Amino acid sequence: MKKFINSTETLLDESLSGFAKAHADIIQLNNQPHFIKRNSPTSPGKVAIISGGGSGHEPLHNGFVGIGMLDAACPGQIFTSPTPDQMLAAAQAVENGGGVLFIVKNYAGDVMNFEIAAEMLDCPNESLLVSDDVSFPKTHSTGRRGVAGTLILEKIVGAAAEQGADLAACKILGDRVNLVTASIGVALSSCTVPALGKPTFEIGDQEIEMGVGIHGERGRERIALSTATEIVDYLTNMIDDDLNPQQGQSALLHVNGFGATPLMELHLIYELASRHWEQRGVNICRSLVGNYTTSLDMAGCSITLSLLDDEMLRLWDAPVHTAALRWGC
Amino acid sequence: MKKFINSTETLLDESLSGFAKAHADIIQLNNQPHFIKRNSPTSPGKVAIISGGGSGHEPLHNGFVGIGMLDAACPGQIFTSPTPDQMLAAAQAVENGGGVLFIVKNYAGDVMNFEIAAEMLDCPNESLLVSDDVSFPKTHSTGRRGVAGTLILEKIVGAAAEQGADLAACKILGDRVNLVTASIGVALSSCTVPALGKPTFEIGDQEIEMGVGIHGERGRERIALSTATEIVDYLTNMIDDDLNPQQGQSALLHVNGFGATPLMELHLIYELASRHWEQRGVNICRSLVGNYTTSLDMAGCSITLSLLDDEMLRLWDAPVHTAALRWGC
Repeated sequence: MKKFINSTETLLDESLSGFAKAHADIIQLNNQPHFIKRNSPTSPGKVAIISGGGSGHEPLHNGFVGIGMLDAACPGQIFTSPTPDQMLAAAQAVENGGGVLFIVKNYAGDVMNFEIAAEMLDCPNESLLVSDDVSFPKTHSTGRRGVAGTLILEKIVGAAAEQGADLAACKILGDRVNLVTASIGVALSSCTVPALGKPTFEIGDQEIEMGVGIHGERGRERIALSTATEIVDYLTNMIDDDLNPQQGQSALLHVNGFGATPLMELHLIYELASRHWEQRGVNICRSLVGNYTTSLDMAGCSITLSLLDDEMLRLWDAPVHTAALRWGC
Repeated sequence: MKKFINSTETLLDESLSGFAKAHADIIQLNNQPHFIKRNSPTSPGKVAIISGGGSGHEPLHNGFVGIGMLDAACPGQIFTSPTPDQMLAAAQAVENGGGVLFIVKNYAGDVMNFEIAAEMLDCPNESLLVSDDVSFPKTHSTGRRGVAGTLILEKIVGAAAEQGADLAACKILGDRVNLVTASIGVALSSCTVPALGKPTFEIGDQEIEMGVGIHGERGRERIALSTATEIVDYLTNMIDDDLNPQQGQSALLHVNGFGATPLMELHLIYELASRHWEQRGVNICRSLVGNYTTSLDMAGCSITLSLLDDEMLRLWDAPVHTAALRWGC
């Protein structure tokens, strides 16, 4: 395993400390327990938007803390849910009279720990479950996983909260965005979890994993390495089967790198995916291309289509000032 | 070779087309010859700032075209200099009465082609040579290479031009920033150039390449894989030997990923490097951490220290609106 680390025990602490120093204008780090909170004060009555999850997906979620997005984020150990005491401490630090909305990717550990935190919390609160990964059918026993679409919910709900939407409105809006957001990923390589020290899965030189998860979970199927056009056809058709976008609908197209795929290739994937939907009359009017929801050093990418209505587009465009997304501020 | 491509012949075109679509609010792509130019109009008499180089280093330089930074960028084929006709066409498209400043990384092909373009150009022009890589001694026969410090010159000189500095002032300022900027990189893996189809160099599981170039050129020396602290000590000491930062000096610390190294590790490197200089009394007052000057899919990073005076800090902070750097706009 070749990584820039001192030890697997100190990796998270040293990395969070560097993140906090590099972005001291936007966020603060709390230790024992770990959470990141925004510096900028909020208006009394603003809903506190909090997310979190295992580390290794940076900039998700720490990089999305700041004005117009998250009030706090709770980083767990690598690919491991944060603990309820982190969530509780974060909530107590940023709650400002408007209650707390937890944004939770649909994984058993995260769901359980956020539920425990919610029960312990003595203020109004709601949880928003993100389940945008269409690689499994809707009927899958544990539901669908939350992947790269998560940041779209965080951005849109975060903007609504910043503009004064109340807890119930934020919850309803987030559920609506989740319903119109579909993602699917493809891996060219496995990631290597530091504590494990070897690739999570083996994959041949001529194979790719379709529908892979963001922790290197096996996906829908393994197919032969093919052209970018064939790969994008596969992914976009999976999204179409699920989301069924209509001619004339407006959409945000997000191409997300898993960590080790060059921006050149992500822009090529964006080109092919945008052609696919433009040919079907879908109006790709917003875009986001880059490494936003990563899987450590995995090579690969995901495509997310989000069918945003006018209100959602306005909230997507609203000012945001975080380490990883910044506009209008 | 596992990459998202259709063919090595169409990779650049398809990728540039995707980049232009994803950032149509900021830039435009010209084909035949290729260049990217900013959408936003400039004031008459503004110096046109133009850079360019081989592709494969994205977001450098295309991602830095926009308000407050570059007026145009010329992307060559992968790791190959753009041609003089690209530079000439870009200059003719964006020149607005203030002359042209070419920002050129110090590589033989780039230097030669920008010189040819400069000779063909019928307006006042200057060239700024970037040579921030301290892995070779100052006396090296072809001079030092331009690496991750390039974007710092582009940002500061771009801001000066936007604020009305004339051609001579931009040239003097850029040369001054170059003199106070030092970078050095380390590779954990080679990159793979698509047309070659295999890694540029072989490297053992327990070896790292110190002083590596951004095209996978061999560096100063190959050493045994060591801890992050030992690696950062090596790199920061190399920079200290060259730049000799003094107690109380203000500095920008830039940790740049080469493409395949997770943000977690880059923030860890930032933490260790900032500790090194803080212990020596250097005032790390600006930071930039992420994948900005990449080498396709190479795992590794570089550290850049730039000793900025008050004027340079003010220009670094000035508004910028590009695909990859955005603040204050």
